[in-house]
Amino acid sequence: MAKVAIVGYGNVGKGVYEATLRNGDIDLCGIISRNPARVEAELKDNIPIYLQSDILEGKDFLDADVAILCGGSKSDLPEQGPAFSEIYNTVDSFDTHANIPSYFKKMDEIARSKEHSSVIGAGWDPGTFSLNRVLADAFIPGCIPKGFYGMEKRGGLSMGHSDAVRRVENVEDARQYTHALNDAINRVRNGENPNLSPGEMHGREVYVVAEKGADRERIEKEVVTMPAYFEGYKTEVKFVSQDDLERICYGMPHDGVVIAVGETGDGNKASIEYRNQWESNPEATGSILVACARAADRLYNESQYGAFTMLDIPPAYMSPHSREELLSRFM
Amino acid sequence: MAKVAIVGYGNVGKGVYEATLRNGDIDLCGIISRNPARVEAELKDNIPIYLQSDILEGKDFLDADVAILCGGSKSDLPEQGPAFSEIYNTVDSFDTHANIPSYFKKMDEIARSKEHSSVIGAGWDPGTFSLNRVLADAFIPGCIPKGFYGMEKRGGLSMGHSDAVRRVENVEDARQYTHALNDAINRVRNGENPNLSPGEMHGREVYVVAEKGADRERIEKEVVTMPAYFEGYKTEVKFVSQDDLERICYGMPHDGVVIAVGETGDGNKASIEYRNQWESNPEATGSILVACARAADRLYNESQYGAFTMLDIPPAYMSPHSREELLSRFM
Repeated sequence: MAKVAIVGYGNVGKGVYEATLRNGDIDLCGIISRNPARVEAELKDNIPIYLQSDILEGKDFLDADVAILCGGSKSDLPEQGPAFSEIYNTVDSFDTHANIPSYFKKMDEIARSKEHSSVIGAGWDPGTFSLNRVLADAFIPGCIPKGFYGMEKRGGLSMGHSDAVRRVENVEDARQYTHALNDAINRVRNGENPNLSPGEMHGREVYVVAEKGADRERIEKEVVTMPAYFEGYKTEVKFVSQDDLERICYGMPHDGVVIAVGETGDGNKASIEYRNQWESNPEATGSILVACARAADRLYNESQYGAFTMLDIPPAYMSPHSREELLSRFM
Repeated sequence: MAKVAIVGYGNVGKGVYEATLRNGDIDLCGIISRNPARVEAELKDNIPIYLQSDILEGKDFLDADVAILCGGSKSDLPEQGPAFSEIYNTVDSFDTHANIPSYFKKMDEIARSKEHSSVIGAGWDPGTFSLNRVLADAFIPGCIPKGFYGMEKRGGLSMGHSDAVRRVENVEDARQYTHALNDAINRVRNGENPNLSPGEMHGREVYVVAEKGADRERIEKEVVTMPAYFEGYKTEVKFVSQDDLERICYGMPHDGVVIAVGETGDGNKASIEYRNQWESNPEATGSILVACARAADRLYNESQYGAFTMLDIPPAYMSPHSREELLSRFM
């Protein structure tokens, strides 16, 4: 039984909470928050709630084996990761791909010096998609694994892009879906290993609620030409009422696939696909974080200290089953 | 650079040979065979060839980091595994699912006592399919991962079933393809987690070359009612000429998928699919065995002795890339 604490009770934190209910060997012993009153108002049962600063400053104490850090990668985790790995074994879903090497280094130094085990970059991408990129590259040398997202109608929801559209003048609300382009998927499946720009791999679909009487043409133009977010992508803007937005764009589903195609031997085609479809993206991340918390607890109990990604952990460590069960039922 | 030896130069051994050519950090230093003359006749280059009994009896010596055992699970590996793990680190594709626990135990004892690292049950199933069953079960507790094979027209070739048909009186040649049934795949994808008998998951397609004037009706009846092999399966028997058999049934392609469907949180559907398509099944196995040889060499260099399955190995150990490369390019 591993005792875990949730740090930060937003969407991912709630996903971890739900996952602890589905994993009999995981005991949720507390929630650590910057705003305990808000957590208390949302919580269905009486899990103890702690003020984050009290825990970090040593004014309060929570006996947990692993702290699951559920903050965002932009401003939360760069502070929470190092701070909590001083006190606990940790798991987080740090997902700013470009900064993973420096974040890993920092977490590795602290975790080693404090004799803790810290799993970083856990989730589905980065996470289990990374794992499948690495294995496909190992099994089919020379293939170039590609990730596609949003094959399903409501998959590919991007919070960052939705926010960017909301900041356009006279826009009341918006949702942005990223969708894989079938032509690109087919070229990768055919084994062309094509060199594709981001805009050749994915298109963007935007639902916009505009203010009454707003200049829709101007809004659309501002959206589709927005640098870094929409420029270079085929973008479709759909104006809808707030009611329609809520009817069409409910929930937080997401889906994606890693496709790797190459050759073995003297030109025999070889292909590996790894696909995930999640009706709730934050619950999916939460479920994987909990499996990684199980692994962090085990690494710690074996005195394997430092930072780990899902690439560094024997897959069996994420499983609740014994070696005997795995050998007889899963091999 | 890991020096590997191939033990047994049949289909899988040739697949390993091809894979060593595609992996720059793997050096094929020799082939060990019960019949060196046959290997020499087939080999394209001058890799040293050794007589198996000479190596096992210490009359000859080959300096290898890892021996990749390419024999069959029925009679070869139960002898070769224990014998070679006395001398080398080993990798094999032992695939008799029911006997994996006892084979693991035996290999673990010998490898530990001789301070070697032995990877057993490597390949795609068991192997990377096992790994995906374990991870899906960890990420979606309560899902029941199912394996389907032969979705492609020429996928699902079974040597054992082909041999069984060849033993029917008046049959000159035969090939058997196992094919996943779409109805079963759809039920699993729908999230029903159905209880399916083997015959509800797969059908069988048999190409038969019959002797001239043979009683085709009797042959067909003998095939479709054959206990353990065809009884309980929907089996389609097609009589063809030897020329047609060779035109239709060339090569050894195979394909399969692991599908796991369940729920996260309060009833949100979650689905993971892992699909492999191989134009050459033995080359696919050979490629994965070589990646596992890299891992065995690394485990040995870290003094991690004993038996391992792909579930027990950090995925990064199968990759030729450094931690820095993996963090920056694959996460």
